[in-house]
Amino acid sequence: MAVGMYDSFFTRHWFSAEAKAIWADTATLQAWLDVEVALARAQADIGMIPPAAADVIAANADARAFDLDKLTAATIKTLHPFVPVLHQFEALCGPEAAGYIHWGATTQNIFDTAVALQLRAAHALIIRDLDRARATIARLARETRDVPQAGRTHGQHALPITFGFKLAGWHAELTRERAHIESRTADAFVASMGGAVGTFAAMNGRGRAVQDAVATLLGLGSNPVPNRSTSDGFAAYASALAPFAATVEKIANEVVFLQRTEIAEVEERFDFGKVGSSTMAHKRNPSHALNLIGLAKMLRSRAPLIVEAMVRTNEGDAAASNAGDSALPEVSIIAASLAEGLVRLVDGMTVDASAMARNLEASGGMILTEAIMMEIAPLIGRHRAHDLLYEIAMERARTGEAFETLLERHSVLAPHLARIDLKRLLDPSHYLGEAAAMADAAASSPH
Amino acid sequence: MAVGMYDSFFTRHWFSAEAKAIWADTATLQAWLDVEVALARAQADIGMIPPAAADVIAANADARAFDLDKLTAATIKTLHPFVPVLHQFEALCGPEAAGYIHWGATTQNIFDTAVALQLRAAHALIIRDLDRARATIARLARETRDVPQAGRTHGQHALPITFGFKLAGWHAELTRERAHIESRTADAFVASMGGAVGTFAAMNGRGRAVQDAVATLLGLGSNPVPNRSTSDGFAAYASALAPFAATVEKIANEVVFLQRTEIAEVEERFDFGKVGSSTMAHKRNPSHALNLIGLAKMLRSRAPLIVEAMVRTNEGDAAASNAGDSALPEVSIIAASLAEGLVRLVDGMTVDASAMARNLEASGGMILTEAIMMEIAPLIGRHRAHDLLYEIAMERARTGEAFETLLERHSVLAPHLARIDLKRLLDPSHYLGEAAAMADAAASSPH
Amino acid sequence: MAVGMYDSFFTRHWFSAEAKAIWADTATLQAWLDVEVALARAQADIGMIPPAAADVIAANADARAFDLDKLTAATIKTLHPFVPVLHQFEALCGPEAAGYIHWGATTQNIFDTAVALQLRAAHALIIRDLDRARATIARLARETRDVPQAGRTHGQHALPITFGFKLAGWHAELTRERAHIESRTADAFVASMGGAVGTFAAMNGRGRAVQDAVATLLGLGSNPVPNRSTSDGFAAYASALAPFAATVEKIANEVVFLQRTEIAEVEERFDFGKVGSSTMAHKRNPSHALNLIGLAKMLRSRAPLIVEAMVRTNEGDAAASNAGDSALPEVSIIAASLAEGLVRLVDGMTVDASAMARNLEASGGMILTEAIMMEIAPLIGRHRAHDLLYEIAMERARTGEAFETLLERHSVLAPHLARIDLKRLLDPSHYLGEAAAMADAAASSPH
Amino acid sequence: MAVGMYDSFFTRHWFSAEAKAIWADTATLQAWLDVEVALARAQADIGMIPPAAADVIAANADARAFDLDKLTAATIKTLHPFVPVLHQFEALCGPEAAGYIHWGATTQNIFDTAVALQLRAAHALIIRDLDRARATIARLARETRDVPQAGRTHGQHALPITFGFKLAGWHAELTRERAHIESRTADAFVASMGGAVGTFAAMNGRGRAVQDAVATLLGLGSNPVPNRSTSDGFAAYASALAPFAATVEKIANEVVFLQRTEIAEVEERFDFGKVGSSTMAHKRNPSHALNLIGLAKMLRSRAPLIVEAMVRTNEGDAAASNAGDSALPEVSIIAASLAEGLVRLVDGMTVDASAMARNLEASGGMILTEAIMMEIAPLIGRHRAHDLLYEIAMERARTGEAFETLLERHSVLAPHLARIDLKRLLDPSHYLGEAAAMADAAASSPH
Repeated sequence: MAVGMYDSFFTRHWFSAEAKAIWADTATLQAWLDVEVALARAQADIGMIPPAAADVIAANADARAFDLDKLTAATIKTLHPFVPVLHQFEALCGPEAAGYIHWGATTQNIFDTAVALQLRAAHALIIRDLDRARATIARLARETRDVPQAGRTHGQHALPITFGFKLAGWHAELTRERAHIESRTADAFVASMGGAVGTFAAMNGRGRAVQDAVATLLGLGSNPVPNRSTSDGFAAYASALAPFAATVEKIANEVVFLQRTEIAEVEERFDFGKVGSSTMAHKRNPSHALNLIGLAKMLRSRAPLIVEAMVRTNEGDAAASNAGDSALPEVSIIAASLAEGLVRLVDGMTVDASAMARNLEASGGMILTEAIMMEIAPLIGRHRAHDLLYEIAMERARTGEAFETLLERHSVLAPHLARIDLKRLLDPSHYLGEAAAMADAAASSPH
Repeated sequence: MAVGMYDSFFTRHWFSAEAKAIWADTATLQAWLDVEVALARAQADIGMIPPAAADVIAANADARAFDLDKLTAATIKTLHPFVPVLHQFEALCGPEAAGYIHWGATTQNIFDTAVALQLRAAHALIIRDLDRARATIARLARETRDVPQAGRTHGQHALPITFGFKLAGWHAELTRERAHIESRTADAFVASMGGAVGTFAAMNGRGRAVQDAVATLLGLGSNPVPNRSTSDGFAAYASALAPFAATVEKIANEVVFLQRTEIAEVEERFDFGKVGSSTMAHKRNPSHALNLIGLAKMLRSRAPLIVEAMVRTNEGDAAASNAGDSALPEVSIIAASLAEGLVRLVDGMTVDASAMARNLEASGGMILTEAIMMEIAPLIGRHRAHDLLYEIAMERARTGEAFETLLERHSVLAPHLARIDLKRLLDPSHYLGEAAAMADAAASSPH
Repeated sequence: MAVGMYDSFFTRHWFSAEAKAIWADTATLQAWLDVEVALARAQADIGMIPPAAADVIAANADARAFDLDKLTAATIKTLHPFVPVLHQFEALCGPEAAGYIHWGATTQNIFDTAVALQLRAAHALIIRDLDRARATIARLARETRDVPQAGRTHGQHALPITFGFKLAGWHAELTRERAHIESRTADAFVASMGGAVGTFAAMNGRGRAVQDAVATLLGLGSNPVPNRSTSDGFAAYASALAPFAATVEKIANEVVFLQRTEIAEVEERFDFGKVGSSTMAHKRNPSHALNLIGLAKMLRSRAPLIVEAMVRTNEGDAAASNAGDSALPEVSIIAASLAEGLVRLVDGMTVDASAMARNLEASGGMILTEAIMMEIAPLIGRHRAHDLLYEIAMERARTGEAFETLLERHSVLAPHLARIDLKRLLDPSHYLGEAAAMADAAASSPH
Repeated sequence: MAVGMYDSFFTRHWFSAEAKAIWADTATLQAWLDVEVALARAQADIGMIPPAAADVIAANADARAFDLDKLTAATIKTLHPFVPVLHQFEALCGPEAAGYIHWGATTQNIFDTAVALQLRAAHALIIRDLDRARATIARLARETRDVPQAGRTHGQHALPITFGFKLAGWHAELTRERAHIESRTADAFVASMGGAVGTFAAMNGRGRAVQDAVATLLGLGSNPVPNRSTSDGFAAYASALAPFAATVEKIANEVVFLQRTEIAEVEERFDFGKVGSSTMAHKRNPSHALNLIGLAKMLRSRAPLIVEAMVRTNEGDAAASNAGDSALPEVSIIAASLAEGLVRLVDGMTVDASAMARNLEASGGMILTEAIMMEIAPLIGRHRAHDLLYEIAMERARTGEAFETLLERHSVLAPHLARIDLKRLLDPSHYLGEAAAMADAAASSPH
């Protein structure tokens, strides 16, 4: 019985299959076993448990050998998420080795360290796809460095930009977020083997050494203070994913806007067979972009929960860790899905320069008031130039007359216009500032 | 491959099985089909489609006949969540009737109306269990109406209460929340059949009649303006669940506190076999209570997402509806799980009156400073009485001397104490105000 | 020194001056005093304190007589928010009456009851302005009941609507939210006089009677269980404001969209002198709409905090009540500002029917594929009709040829078209469904 | 008229006065002017405007010379937050220089760059106080490295720790958060001078050079792509403050718990005159800790708003920037208040080792079941040892008999116990693991 959006037949394709494989039940169980194996191995190396026991433990650490239905039944009876796993694992290993499983550790050690492994695996997907998306955006930025487009602020035409400049903005943002997310891995991807309250009490004075060895075996950091009420590393990692989600949401929103029937400057990839509506045959919806927006909202809603779940009482607090632990796979899967989806979105994107040119005309030239103001400002002052252009623009809004006509007719402004090249000032391609240079910088940045 | 906490072998027991059955994939598909059947039936009754077609549609509306894997594959190809369902349904119904499926409707009509059916079914569970929990709390309130307990504010002993009074507070809060949630059903449990943009355009002038008939068939309300960018009814329902979650969280927190090793006034149900720790054999954790706290946090984190998803552009906006639609089953399942878990929590709760009595001594009598102040206030003024008792209490904190001794030794206070019955004033059972009466009111309220 | 957006010289105009007057420091102090007066009056009536004392208390309950700087200084010293107020109040009342101030009450009783008074006052503003906005929207709905406009879903033209229909959707949503908010007042606007732990311990058995009398004097309800760790009434009220905020955000978003340079179907009120940019003289930004969106986001962010703050430990918990208490004035002020701003937004809104007509052409007739499909469906089946129209629409997207030409040229479809009135089918004004009727219903609903 | 918690007479002391001074209205205005001065200076150096104009601009850039009431009035008329400031500034500078103010810039450039300056100033406070708190915690960790205390998990006694170990956990967390916050400054503390749409269009090809020079003058970074719809730098900074807030909340929660009447192991600083209640004279509430919890919740509630406000449309979007801009001062002030309050909390904290010792007895020795299990495990297996101890612990819970007695009486266990030193095993000071070493590491870490 599939419950929940990750598995559901009509929504499962929203989510990265690779990321889901990392967080699937069996993969989680396997990650737990991998941590137990590393623990046993480390303890054998240090002389805390017999090497033969570690070998048996390693040989039997295969999630496929476990009976998940029995695990569920036993979990319900014990109300403990891991003791039933230990019992099956002990049975698989046989009485000799069984006693050395989980030596000196507590459940949360296993869970937290396994989560670090799983987060790390999904993190690799996130970075891989972020880099792919950045590379595509960079290429598009180079190609469209000089393609003029209306710059819009607050819903109104403002000044011309180039599409490459817009892409440079996306690129810069994603590049910073990549660095941000990367900077949060060292504190999150750690092994914790502190035992019941984090003091290594059951490790006979060798706890730090055991944990360091486990960390080395698993390629993780070693938690300086492995107390169980600390989860800032995970929370900071999740907190770094939220702005990334917001950036993807922003980009996807922009695509939805640029693909609008009236705008039509950009279209996301379309494959014949993609259907927009059960009833309106013509609909070519920006489905990928829309999906990404929904996913981003989901991720943003989970990050605060993980931060709230940092507030843990005393030396351990299942109330908070339940809430945080169940949200970590979600943000990890959703972030990987956002990165994957972003690749899909930008890879297939088509750009219509002629539509951009057409839309640039929508304000009847007013999109260049600033250009005119800056030209006239040295003659009559910046403030006065602004006021006169304001007057004319408002008159145009009232009367609908042509902007150029109004300019030329204005008693105060007209004399000054005579000395300037109005035609050139009203040509968007002459007022693009350093847009192309910024597109170039994006295009040539390393990915 | 199970992904996500609802299905996972080690967390699925956190969630109401009944509620999950309502929201399982096949149940969702069945709900969609049920809505299509109601639509066809209504249109046949009105004369819009042939009655025979409606019969065929009804006869084939069985989710078990669908191939879910093929649905998934087709969903990925079309990027549409319902067109593949329609295609299979059409094949099942045969060419004659197929053309009359989904007549004049749009996908979101089916989804929204089905969600109303599913929410309603889960709502019944919520109310059922809320009422069970309220009944148990009422019974406990009666039983413990006179059991004195330390009242604590800001972590410090304040004044005595009775445990029944504390329960009366829980009861009052849950009773108001029941009413609140109920008050949000009429706007949420509605049928919407407005078609592609909500105008009933494809219904040939009979749209309102069709929708009213569908609503009647399904026992739902009929949406006054079935436009597709409106979801306030669902959002208000979800918003009403969040304070309920917070109340359960508060109650569960209180149980965790009262069960603390040092307090030990209350214990949640314990069955032999319940394990607290993989390493500390003695642990009797308040597992149910802890689970409820985690669930409540999850629910609280989803409600704002559903409200945010109300912000939809134009006549329909999948970006927002994806986010909202995927969170509705979650809040519904979690709320039902909270209600179910609350029953479990209060049903098995044991109360230790002697521990309560013992803890009442912890402040060495200072828990009754107010009683003394109110007695002396008429003699020396309320303000001055407060000041003198403050002085003494702070001295006690500094020196550790007995409160009573300090009272009797105080030059200003002592003379007045001579005229009052200090022993009686320091007996918690004489300063319980109207605690018992409030417990009685809870006990006798209808459930 | 003004800190914070409510008072700041460049943002204070975002917020309702009326609502801020209700929540200003002096008004809060006055509300506290009003509650103390009601308490004294009630106790005098019941014979608990001398009537003369109540008279003196009432006569001196004037916030203007208090020295706020001294209050601040004393608050810092005592770390108590109300004891300094009591001290000044006692000094103002003189020794005789001073002892009877605050008799049997605790600080939070005064604060919570005062908050109820302030919330109620701001609530009246919210409802007043909601009704004004609803009335204007209703009027506009009548006026534009038949004005065709492109219906857009997922950013793409879908089917025609009328602008009056869009307004009917806003109206329906706001009307439900008005009822929702109103339904949450009875539990929120209550008097609580339970004293230190809520048991009325210091009221000598007359606590319930005192609280009922206070409630009557203040026109509030009487809290059934006035324990201090309960705040569901306030939280439910705040939770009801969040969906309202989301609806205003949705409406404002829609106005921003409809006012876009390329769309230009609607414009919010513009007064000469309103400036869009310090540098682009022509900008006519939808400033009111943009402000409302920002405000709505602010409100939405505060509501979950108030729900979280319901989770209070034991009989009182300042950690949570501080967080909740400081957010209640915010949601109250912001909600009143949203209602006020909504009036401003819809009152001055101008509608350009010709722009709507022009934009309806943007899809080259494809906005009516459903109309054609429904007409042909009885001839060739709904599914097949959808497929053929899909083919043609996709061909148009590829080639840019006219939709009508492609229709007429299609070998399978063309024969059927011969039998139908294609011109009529491609006229948006013939496919508006029951849009006008829904506009009428909004227009004639009571406000 | 003070509205809002930062200025209110009864809550203003919750907030850092230093941080509020940075964000007060006049300081904000001054920050804007400072940015305008840097812009003018940079442009004069580059030869874009006359040096004399830059001198006049610099000489008049004094917020105290502005009429704030007039600014407010003009803001209401223009609905623009900065044009009125420009007008007054122009008047102050005189006609000659006025024309060169704000040359080529747009309002948001000034605002964003000023916010960077203000955030940086408040950031210095946060880091200063975080370091003070860390130093105090480190000192306390050294002092209490060996002080045994009950380790508690899930509300139940688990294993002994030392108080120094608990502090080491706080220290490690705060140290990571310091690094996290610091790592987010480079992207947040930047100058942006891209003009109306971010292309430097009005800077005549010298925009990048101007922005770099402004950045150098102000000691900020230079924004690579200064488009106006990007705010990830601020959002990432705010996102880094949220986990810090959660850690302070956790610490403060722990203090509230440890100060509880029944626990009494720790007390926050108390000064005579601090009042706990208007009615209960004895109350010594953990007021500072409670305040910190409330503040932390407030901060946590604002961070997601700032992330949501990253989602901006096109080249600029006041709806989002209003919401984000108004929340940035809030998180900055609250974070500084949390850091300041944390210093106050830990500086005055008193530790009662004897209370800790007393509470360690609360479980009657069961807190050491793991120690016994680990000792016996080599003899009878870990699993079986766990089972036997479980049996005994549950029997004790049922019967209340002494744990030691039950151990010695158990037919299976008793023989093994004979061979071990049970007294020693039941002494908490022998089962502290590496707690002291971790306290030492905290104590010796650099601050």
